Amino acid sequence: MQTLGYAARSATEALASFRFDRREPRPDDVVLDVLYCGVCHTDLHIARNHAGYTRYPVVPGHEIVGRVTQVGSAVTGFKVGDTIGVGCMVDSCQHCNPCRQGDEQHCEQGPTFTYNAVDRHDGQPTYGGYSKQMVVSEKFVLRIPDGLHPAGVAPLLCAGITTWEPLHRWKAGPGKRVAVVGLGGLGHMALKLAKALGAEVTLFTRSPGKEADARRLGADHVVLSSDAGQMGAVAGHFDLIVDTVPYEHDVNPYLPTLRFNGTLVLVGYMGPLNTPVSAGALVFGRKAIAGSFIGGVAATQEMLDFCGEHGVVSDVEVIPIQQINQAYERLLKSDVKYRFVIDMASLQIEQA
Amino acid sequence: MQTLGYAARSATEALASFRFDRREPRPDDVVLDVLYCGVCHTDLHIARNHAGYTRYPVVPGHEIVGRVTQVGSAVTGFKVGDTIGVGCMVDSCQHCNPCRQGDEQHCEQGPTFTYNAVDRHDGQPTYGGYSKQMVVSEKFVLRIPDGLHPAGVAPLLCAGITTWEPLHRWKAGPGKRVAVVGLGGLGHMALKLAKALGAEVTLFTRSPGKEADARRLGADHVVLSSDAGQMGAVAGHFDLIVDTVPYEHDVNPYLPTLRFNGTLVLVGYMGPLNTPVSAGALVFGRKAIAGSFIGGVAATQEMLDFCGEHGVVSDVEVIPIQQINQAYERLLKSDVKYRFVIDMASLQIEQA
Repeated sequence: MQTLGYAARSATEALASFRFDRREPRPDDVVLDVLYCGVCHTDLHIARNHAGYTRYPVVPGHEIVGRVTQVGSAVTGFKVGDTIGVGCMVDSCQHCNPCRQGDEQHCEQGPTFTYNAVDRHDGQPTYGGYSKQMVVSEKFVLRIPDGLHPAGVAPLLCAGITTWEPLHRWKAGPGKRVAVVGLGGLGHMALKLAKALGAEVTLFTRSPGKEADARRLGADHVVLSSDAGQMGAVAGHFDLIVDTVPYEHDVNPYLPTLRFNGTLVLVGYMGPLNTPVSAGALVFGRKAIAGSFIGGVAATQEMLDFCGEHGVVSDVEVIPIQQINQAYERLLKSDVKYRFVIDMASLQIEQA
Repeated sequence: MQTLGYAARSATEALASFRFDRREPRPDDVVLDVLYCGVCHTDLHIARNHAGYTRYPVVPGHEIVGRVTQVGSAVTGFKVGDTIGVGCMVDSCQHCNPCRQGDEQHCEQGPTFTYNAVDRHDGQPTYGGYSKQMVVSEKFVLRIPDGLHPAGVAPLLCAGITTWEPLHRWKAGPGKRVAVVGLGGLGHMALKLAKALGAEVTLFTRSPGKEADARRLGADHVVLSSDAGQMGAVAGHFDLIVDTVPYEHDVNPYLPTLRFNGTLVLVGYMGPLNTPVSAGALVFGRKAIAGSFIGGVAATQEMLDFCGEHGVVSDVEVIPIQQINQAYERLLKSDVKYRFVIDMASLQIEQA
């Protein structure tokens, strides 16, 4: 099945339209027309080969909302016309310990990512959501609740689940005090979700100008992390800190703001913590630094259902796909509130 | 009540005998003759002012087993003749959140430590177990189970509870894989307790010569952390790593040996982790680095009762108090298997 998308053909070329084949649907596959696809920092990293493992051409995109156009003979959960979602993964081994626990993102054999990966059945490359159509096993397809605008839903499939996972696992809710470090795509979702979960929500930021927006998004308090007085005032305060900062930073200033038994969870950064972490800051108060990586299929569905009940969507700037390269440049300057989402109807003009 | 102990009078003087007063017992106090007192690394650090906050003269010792000689009018849990224990703390605020949860060691106002602290009622210095007698509120007195040799019990009051706490909190037991880093006073207790709890137990060590001893103490496996092949063979293996190393070291080599959801718990080191911790090593696999600090009164009693049921005591080298300074020198060379314990009967000759 031939389809059309936008691909990077090398680390230095702009993304441009790209015709390629999607597999014929297998019995468990769902075929969808992509309606909207969010633009995640990872898309840019992979398109430009920042991690060194990109296979070109690469079609990015893993925050996908689409409509079912066809279902395989064994599909039971979806039908033609359903609005569905696809996130960062399209397959996993399905039998290892993490997979059996619903944590396919931690599959011991490695999950099959939505793009820049290799399908575990036919050995063909996976291509992401910057495209007209996709073919995905129903095991990795999500139901989208009614009543939410699909453009705002798209970022839930990555930014939403990435922040939901630690909030949920560390039991953010009424009576819990949650802080979020950083106000970008992940951070704004963390504020919204923590607030909707009923927690007391604080934003740590280095930018005084973000206060009004942070409060609108759900923050009860905003703490300037560069202000020693403000930091001292929240010593021992937080049960959970969700650290969304995507670049190297010092976590030590946040550790004293954790309460006894508190945890700081890294969700945005994978590199070395170059400023030495103080072991004593963990030992005294029984604190922890943990990591969390997206979330499993069941957790993603739970998050989407929760968002449906609470009317939570991402704040988005909808763009036509022809603006993706400019969007990447703005992403590099954090110039977006708070997620670019591609309206895939814009792909039509490429077919002329 | 005048008593006799051994004190350091400055950071550079050897410990020597020291006469001082213990308070008259309050209604909730227990008076005890100290029978045995373990020698913890902390004793040496405080005696030599390594952390900079020692008040001299200081009488160290917080691994104390003694016999009750007198009880205050309000004491209900102990009677004259009972064999009892005192650990690292002798008081706390009793009403903050951690205290109410039985985690007095994390008291928000700070627990009153057994020595080198200030009594929160009379403002007098606290003096530790290198002494003939002590006076301690029954709230911080432990029952010693029958059938265990009191010299071997003494180190349970610090080394025992320090390693029990993470094993218990992170649910070491049948079906769980526990690794211990370092084989000293803490490490040898961690092996014994983890084994008695029913876990599969592994020792990480840099010293090939420790294998036989480690197996005797409870290790099912010994992994040379300097051997890349051996480290690779335990990739993704452990639910819990109890890191007892008391000096600066690199935790990164251990993180890949954690299973999905696994945690490395620091219990022996309080300084900076100078080798940058990899955030990605935590994010992928939802792992954590945590700290743990001794344990509360109730947990310490639970640990002692467990040790009574399972016949667990420390491996000790019993010394007279007159050898304490030589013992400190040997401690600096890790030349002890695995804990010095002072037989306080040796204090008698000082009184002639």
